[in-house]
Amino acid sequence: MNHKTTAFIQAARVAHLATADKKGRPHVIPICYAFDGREIYSPIDEKPKKISPLLLKRIRNIQVNPHVSVVIDRYDEDWNRLAYVLILGRAKVVLRGARHERAVRLLRKKYPQYRKMRLEARPIIQITPIQWKSWGAL
Amino acid sequence: MNHKTTAFIQAARVAHLATADKKGRPHVIPICYAFDGREIYSPIDEKPKKISPLLLKRIRNIQVNPHVSVVIDRYDEDWNRLAYVLILGRAKVVLRGARHERAVRLLRKKYPQYRKMRLEARPIIQITPIQWKSWGAL
Repeated sequence: MNHKTTAFIQAARVAHLATADKKGRPHVIPICYAFDGREIYSPIDEKPKKISPLLLKRIRNIQVNPHVSVVIDRYDEDWNRLAYVLILGRAKVVLRGARHERAVRLLRKKYPQYRKMRLEARPIIQITPIQWKSWGAL
Repeated sequence: MNHKTTAFIQAARVAHLATADKKGRPHVIPICYAFDGREIYSPIDEKPKKISPLLLKRIRNIQVNPHVSVVIDRYDEDWNRLAYVLILGRAKVVLRGARHERAVRLLRKKYPQYRKMRLEARPIIQITPIQWKSWGAL
């Protein structure tokens, strides 16, 4: 991944994560995330959810099918300024440990909103990009 | 679908479409679209693409697996203002006919950018919502 692609991913505030269930039915949601240049981390945070973190659809999908896709894009009414980075990768759920701690630090650095949330106790989705492509005016 | 949900979908300028291939590997991209209150229409437009419209990944996926997911969301640094509508549905590719013409009209009404593009000759993805849920401050 080149510098421009990495910088575009790191600068954006929201990405979209697609997972699929065992039958291949896709599911897509907006996510907050941090990118360390190799891995993408997205927490199951304390924004209101009706069910327990590990029962969320994205988590259940990843547990039966680790293939995911993430897109980071910029929309603009001047369509010459449109851009995206599309990532195909594999995801896993991290509950604790050194990698979890590192992800929490990165997320709090990027989003001041996370400094007041107890991310330590929440699952984090770790996404390893396998293929990516960029399009438009990064 | 209630009025608030419909209005939120119609007002947004970009959505995210997730498809999956035969093996259940998901793919997600930003899309422009119009919503008539029942169906979502997204054209394979003339924004730069390296390959022929019908060879695009989203189209090939839909042809082997019609299950799709679309999310329309608003990001804001004030997380009390976050919102999304998540749709699970079925997609098909429309190449011509009355429905295609209607979709082109809707798309040109919503996006002045489309008034100069030859959408008449381009495939349109028609998405029929089957389930949906809204979250946050619509």
